[in-house]
Amino acid sequence: MSALPSLSVPYLSADAVAHLIAARGPATCMAEIAERIEADFRRWGEFDKTPRVASHSPEGVIELMPVSDGRHYSFKYVNGHPKNQRVGLPTVLAFGVLADVATGLPALLCDLTLTTALRTAAMSALAARVLARPDCRRMAVIGNGAQSEFQVLAFHRLLGIRECHLYDIDPAATTKLMSNLARLGIVAKPFESTAAAVKGCDIVTTITADKTNATILTPEMIEPGMHLNAVGGDCPGKTELHRDILLRAGQVFVEYAPQTRIEGELQQMPDDFPAIEFWSVLDGSAAGRPTVDALTIFDSVGFALEDFSALRWLQSVATQPAALGLLPQLDEPRNLFGYLPLADCLPKAA
Amino acid sequence: MSALPSLSVPYLSADAVAHLIAARGPATCMAEIAERIEADFRRWGEFDKTPRVASHSPEGVIELMPVSDGRHYSFKYVNGHPKNQRVGLPTVLAFGVLADVATGLPALLCDLTLTTALRTAAMSALAARVLARPDCRRMAVIGNGAQSEFQVLAFHRLLGIRECHLYDIDPAATTKLMSNLARLGIVAKPFESTAAAVKGCDIVTTITADKTNATILTPEMIEPGMHLNAVGGDCPGKTELHRDILLRAGQVFVEYAPQTRIEGELQQMPDDFPAIEFWSVLDGSAAGRPTVDALTIFDSVGFALEDFSALRWLQSVATQPAALGLLPQLDEPRNLFGYLPLADCLPKAA
Repeated sequence: MSALPSLSVPYLSADAVAHLIAARGPATCMAEIAERIEADFRRWGEFDKTPRVASHSPEGVIELMPVSDGRHYSFKYVNGHPKNQRVGLPTVLAFGVLADVATGLPALLCDLTLTTALRTAAMSALAARVLARPDCRRMAVIGNGAQSEFQVLAFHRLLGIRECHLYDIDPAATTKLMSNLARLGIVAKPFESTAAAVKGCDIVTTITADKTNATILTPEMIEPGMHLNAVGGDCPGKTELHRDILLRAGQVFVEYAPQTRIEGELQQMPDDFPAIEFWSVLDGSAAGRPTVDALTIFDSVGFALEDFSALRWLQSVATQPAALGLLPQLDEPRNLFGYLPLADCLPKAA
Repeated sequence: MSALPSLSVPYLSADAVAHLIAARGPATCMAEIAERIEADFRRWGEFDKTPRVASHSPEGVIELMPVSDGRHYSFKYVNGHPKNQRVGLPTVLAFGVLADVATGLPALLCDLTLTTALRTAAMSALAARVLARPDCRRMAVIGNGAQSEFQVLAFHRLLGIRECHLYDIDPAATTKLMSNLARLGIVAKPFESTAAAVKGCDIVTTITADKTNATILTPEMIEPGMHLNAVGGDCPGKTELHRDILLRAGQVFVEYAPQTRIEGELQQMPDDFPAIEFWSVLDGSAAGRPTVDALTIFDSVGFALEDFSALRWLQSVATQPAALGLLPQLDEPRNLFGYLPLADCLPKAA
């Protein structure tokens, strides 16, 4: 069988992405991605945005997340299947494509599973740097699953957080997180309840996985001046905060309101509950933290623009992507039929 | 650099798909895909459907087309860039993914450029078999670009069409089409205008590429009992039929009305212009051709379900897909961080 010419797509396997991130250092990668995200959020108006397109099933969700700035286009495929763990599969897997708007040609195809964790944590830390009190020292991480190391590492690097309080309903998850953090030289303390873990913390990150309207945080746990980084409520029917906490804050900060109203903590609230898009705090058109003692909430669901920023970052740091023959290279663009190796299908001479 | 374990995704390159189609025979492939499409359209109600998500730019469009039946999920990435030809690139390139709804894991990643042409022609022929007069013998093909061979071949195989009249504003396109058809033993005649080509034809396929509101067919060209297979009007601002033709037919047959009202010939008409979804003709809940002398129009734009059918077909006939290490294989699903080869990023011992 002869090889037909292909229009090769630059490609990074999961293996290649992992080696790239490890060699560069995951904290450095998150700092670089946070810079990209901030720069892209500052030019918010240039992007063609749409809420992600979700396909729900009883077991989970599969989503497509496209966005474009008129020069580059990106989309991410991502699933969320909490029961996958029981059969040894990850809850979340993701891959994505960056493409050239002028021609429609893919410019990069790659794993985004690790990168999704990096960009989510980078976004969390970036939002906290803008919205939390400047003197934050102590963070609680409620939910110690696949993304928790990245959250701790990002807050360690970008906000200088040195004290971490951990809690998960499954102690094995906390043990796993502590062990990974220890290898990085970061000390963290396990607690026996959410209430005990969040006590005295400046920042509380909630990043639990169950697809239910859970109440991870209740009003009596909230202390003056806290910043809540609410990451795990990111799907219709999946929330983490008691609604009285949102009422107490009086507003939430969000990535992209049309999507967060469907998927975030905001889904619990009436349609007119104030949601301030983060870009508008960055560019000064909206206020950030109201007072030192105020409660701020970043109701994060993950927006396509963060993947765009991360894909552009990956493209810039991946010096030698592989070449995948995903698409046909035609001698004459209108002669698609001619790409078929016709000798294979015509009757052979006797 | 050590290789990390990957969750490999079955993969078919453009080359692999082309060899597979050629070995099986493109006409046979289209007959098989048409069977799959018909079977899937007959269970229309089982699918979670959405109009495709389009990102438009002055040069073209990039689209994502997801659909699911609750067991399998598919999406296609496809672009449409008419000016690409000028730089030697195809107008349309496509790739897609089939995934398992229960876990979210991709089950196939492959080129869909050739397959899009196959499924479009298979859909056209299937619709004509249901809607055109049973005694059709002669077809005109207006627009002799990348998809035209597949149209002729599908109608040859599925409807027994033996006489083909061709016209394109660029005679070189017609020459290319005739040359490819001659290799398959199919005779076709070139004409010097659309009017001359369609005269005396039972079926007229319009499949032109310009992204404009063109008027390829005008009312005086229409003959009693004709079936119009209007394929090229598939994008906002891109139509091929004079609106008086639609008024004369009094209705159009469509794949999925919410999408065709945005993208098809239907975009020229008021919101209440009758659009009959093809599945309802198949299952008998709507009438097909009204009378022998009536004008029928299949206002085809291409719907995600056709790609789903084609991807399921590809999965069934591809005996040996390659294995792509696109996603990480984790030892412990919650330990994504552990997938990083940490030896690469920790300070080396002196």
